[in-house]
Amino acid sequence: MEGIGVSNGIEISKVLIKDVKEEIPRYSIEDISAEILRFKSAVEDSIKDIENLILNEKLAKEEMEIFDAHICMLKDEEFLRFVEEKIKTDKINSEWALEKGKQFFVELFNSFDNEYFKERSIDLIDIINRATNKLLKKEELNYEKIEGKFVLVAHDLTPSETVKIDKNKIIGFITEIGGKTSHVAIVARMLGIPAIVGAKNILSMVDNQSIIAMDGGNGQFIINPTQYDIESFNEKKKIMQIEENLDKDFLDKIPLSKDMKRFQVACNLQVPTQLDEIVKNNGEGIGLLRSEFIYMDRKNAPTEDIQFEIYKDIAVQMKEKPVIIRTLDVGGDKEISYLNIPKEENPFLGLRATRYCLKEKKFFKTQLRAILRASNFGKVKIMFPMISSLKEIREAKNLLQECKKELDYEKIKYDEDIEIGIMIEVPSAAIISDILAKEVDFFSIGTNDLIQYTVAVDRLNNNVSDLYSNYNLAVLRLIKMVIENGHKNGIYVGMCGEAARDVNLIPIFMAMGLDEFSVNPSYVCRVKRYMSRYDIYQCEKLCKKVLSLETDEEIEIILEEFENQNKK
Amino acid sequence: MEGIGVSNGIEISKVLIKDVKEEIPRYSIEDISAEILRFKSAVEDSIKDIENLILNEKLAKEEMEIFDAHICMLKDEEFLRFVEEKIKTDKINSEWALEKGKQFFVELFNSFDNEYFKERSIDLIDIINRATNKLLKKEELNYEKIEGKFVLVAHDLTPSETVKIDKNKIIGFITEIGGKTSHVAIVARMLGIPAIVGAKNILSMVDNQSIIAMDGGNGQFIINPTQYDIESFNEKKKIMQIEENLDKDFLDKIPLSKDMKRFQVACNLQVPTQLDEIVKNNGEGIGLLRSEFIYMDRKNAPTEDIQFEIYKDIAVQMKEKPVIIRTLDVGGDKEISYLNIPKEENPFLGLRATRYCLKEKKFFKTQLRAILRASNFGKVKIMFPMISSLKEIREAKNLLQECKKELDYEKIKYDEDIEIGIMIEVPSAAIISDILAKEVDFFSIGTNDLIQYTVAVDRLNNNVSDLYSNYNLAVLRLIKMVIENGHKNGIYVGMCGEAARDVNLIPIFMAMGLDEFSVNPSYVCRVKRYMSRYDIYQCEKLCKKVLSLETDEEIEIILEEFENQNKK
Repeated sequence: MEGIGVSNGIEISKVLIKDVKEEIPRYSIEDISAEILRFKSAVEDSIKDIENLILNEKLAKEEMEIFDAHICMLKDEEFLRFVEEKIKTDKINSEWALEKGKQFFVELFNSFDNEYFKERSIDLIDIINRATNKLLKKEELNYEKIEGKFVLVAHDLTPSETVKIDKNKIIGFITEIGGKTSHVAIVARMLGIPAIVGAKNILSMVDNQSIIAMDGGNGQFIINPTQYDIESFNEKKKIMQIEENLDKDFLDKIPLSKDMKRFQVACNLQVPTQLDEIVKNNGEGIGLLRSEFIYMDRKNAPTEDIQFEIYKDIAVQMKEKPVIIRTLDVGGDKEISYLNIPKEENPFLGLRATRYCLKEKKFFKTQLRAILRASNFGKVKIMFPMISSLKEIREAKNLLQECKKELDYEKIKYDEDIEIGIMIEVPSAAIISDILAKEVDFFSIGTNDLIQYTVAVDRLNNNVSDLYSNYNLAVLRLIKMVIENGHKNGIYVGMCGEAARDVNLIPIFMAMGLDEFSVNPSYVCRVKRYMSRYDIYQCEKLCKKVLSLETDEEIEIILEEFENQNKK
Repeated sequence: MEGIGVSNGIEISKVLIKDVKEEIPRYSIEDISAEILRFKSAVEDSIKDIENLILNEKLAKEEMEIFDAHICMLKDEEFLRFVEEKIKTDKINSEWALEKGKQFFVELFNSFDNEYFKERSIDLIDIINRATNKLLKKEELNYEKIEGKFVLVAHDLTPSETVKIDKNKIIGFITEIGGKTSHVAIVARMLGIPAIVGAKNILSMVDNQSIIAMDGGNGQFIINPTQYDIESFNEKKKIMQIEENLDKDFLDKIPLSKDMKRFQVACNLQVPTQLDEIVKNNGEGIGLLRSEFIYMDRKNAPTEDIQFEIYKDIAVQMKEKPVIIRTLDVGGDKEISYLNIPKEENPFLGLRATRYCLKEKKFFKTQLRAILRASNFGKVKIMFPMISSLKEIREAKNLLQECKKELDYEKIKYDEDIEIGIMIEVPSAAIISDILAKEVDFFSIGTNDLIQYTVAVDRLNNNVSDLYSNYNLAVLRLIKMVIENGHKNGIYVGMCGEAARDVNLIPIFMAMGLDEFSVNPSYVCRVKRYMSRYDIYQCEKLCKKVLSLETDEEIEIILEEFENQNKK
């Protein structure tokens, strides 16, 4: 059986089913004002509850925001008036009026074919359930009374429910609805426990006596697994651990092929807390610093000084290792509210990254100046995302030049020879990489987007996920072309997409001469271990073979065979 | 000054400003039930009005649907109750209660960052204004009282307002808001009068004494134009007419270069009514029959017989000329409600066209069978859109094979040698066109999507429209590659995107050896006229030059220069 795996890990455990909700009492009332008072005090108690939650529980920022939103909803006049009107005009009890409000607003929210509102309707259900429980004087699910370890199975979990979860008792979630970006998914990843969402109708197949085996990585689960199933899940878990142990031997080694060709293995940095991990895993620099984190979770744009301090700190901590700072990659699936980027029909094909920055020149220059200033304190490089034409990179370079002049005038130091690079992630950029290579010091191939655009497949859309593959022949041809064009023009070529850590593809990229593999810190050792297995000659032979094939599936099979043959 | 040009044509005329709305009267009421009766009868009168409109005006299908929706809204219980509650609880007059309803619902609709709801809020304003006018016993704008010809300038026009417009008096529209797909845009194109939307703040710059010169093609307009402006707009209008006259000389000529190389000029067919135009313009076949029209504006999917009859009719009417039927291209910007395609974050990168059809095999086979049956009555060919890999075309061909077997078994005739082609519109398909060419009888390059995906630019998104260009170097390189790969494998290559009728690009595609140009019927003569101007040698020289350039802008300049030099 399969859902959508949203948080990695393998668990086999008993099932705990989230209570199916009780009947809501329905009766007529006489004393309208007394009933309205009763309703109002339930709302007030609910607000107090949430305020306590915010004060007393250790909440993540995202959760704080959710509960803040709940309080807002509970104070919302439209909502309160709706329920009060129901009590007044229909002369019904508060629980029933709340239920009617739930039906009305949830239906309304869901009628907008829009993920955001669907998620908000979950919040609404949450607050209405909370108020109803207050009215019914019902207590919430109490984890203290639960003994043992369970996989929690539910139709869906509200934020209130997830935040109280006890990690010692709930070791995995499976829900019937939700997507990769749903609240449950985010919480599960935060808690570090495996989770599967979109497991349709699972509630009709399990009870509290069921056992479930789940793999949060690929979304697979088995209800009441056989001994054989249990062994195979445990085997998989064991193999994961063995692989991790083998990787550790490569911590202090430099990245070399079996015949001693040197490669670089750098790291991607998504949030500053990953810096420790990069140092711990001996990453040879930061191949991609996603500067978005500086802009997110804020009320307004970060100043030049704020940015400068962050870049400088990272550059200093990385000592003389290179730090490639990618300028803001906003848009697409990344929203930053205060930038007021218009809602678009196809945000992945819209005003993203450098496209946006080139329209907001003053805003862009703040970042460029901060990066330049930081370049005085380490080996900082600058990289522009989403470049699709020569014109864009020239415009970006002109702005950088302006910033340099300003800093000269202000007598502020920076690295005059700061290297400039671009992401190659739009097909047109790959196709004219011979021309673009003359303008920059390096390329970094962003495989996630390059695949997405080359095959015209939204990488987050489950409807077409079968077309999204690291092994796409057209994309491999483009990657080869980009590396060749880079080398012909004497610049180096890195890769920072997820394909760079795909162990099946490592020999292919080695054959193509990729200079730098930039991966999440936890993959550094693994990439080095796989590199050490192969002679370049072997890789080239394999690469030639792969490029002579015709379908993604054939390529995947050949690569897996090769990988298996070379296992130690 | 510039807005968004949504309907072609040049006009210079006096301005008519749509009345700025009057103050809504506000007063308290005593007799609630009398007021509610008054409100109800205004609603009923409004409904009757619209019913009369539907009966008596010659409405297009889209307009009928809008007014049907208006009647639904006027009968909507939630809405009626909201206003009645306001009258009851606030003890206010109906106009004021309606105004509050308008504020509430319009704000609600607009809070959903969603084009659909924004458009619906216009409908809502329309019905509320109508009911308010009934209450105030106000008459609508009466075109009979207007003397002369005007360009109508408004913040926005409601469907009720546009439908009553008298083409003899209103010769153009300019509105402050709206997009390419807004109602005003559609109506203007239907009426065949120039229109510009998104002309921000124009109302603050004009009055009823103003003169305006507008070009609905490029969205440019000039308020109170100088004599020089007027002459230049008139000049442009005259040139358009001269060009059209020159084209007519080519009606009976076959498409030849100056040195007599033969090309094909076929037509795209969007709706069956265009068939006359194709015949009238001597199109050498249908290079792209967009089968969507058969599926749209229906309550459920068309049966095999319905489809067969339509395809057959067209095939018969085209006599022995080829008819390339493209299988359903749903998704992206084309919605078909009964197919229940899930709302996607990036529909252009989602479940579109053949991707959808391959998931709904039974549904797809209905169309394939209908096309096969029609192939017995003319020169029908079949074309699959949105192919991105070998696997997809193989699957589609397998389904076609299944259909052939079924028809054999049922002893139904079809053309056993029916030609099979694919659209080349996804970059991956262009990049592996050497492999795909071995599977099919022809390619047709869909430049609109090919540009969109190669440059990662939504072709309908104004925020990034500066990146969308027919002159994109990467795209031209891909087109050249596709044509070469097709010819190397002995298949012919057509083009059905808008670039095929771009007169600047005609010599480039001639040089590349494009076999067929498929264009809208009105462009057939023009394409033939431009072809006749050039020797192939000249085209090849130009093409070589163009492909050695580096930016879209340089390419455009060189092509325009060449075009100007060759003007007769």
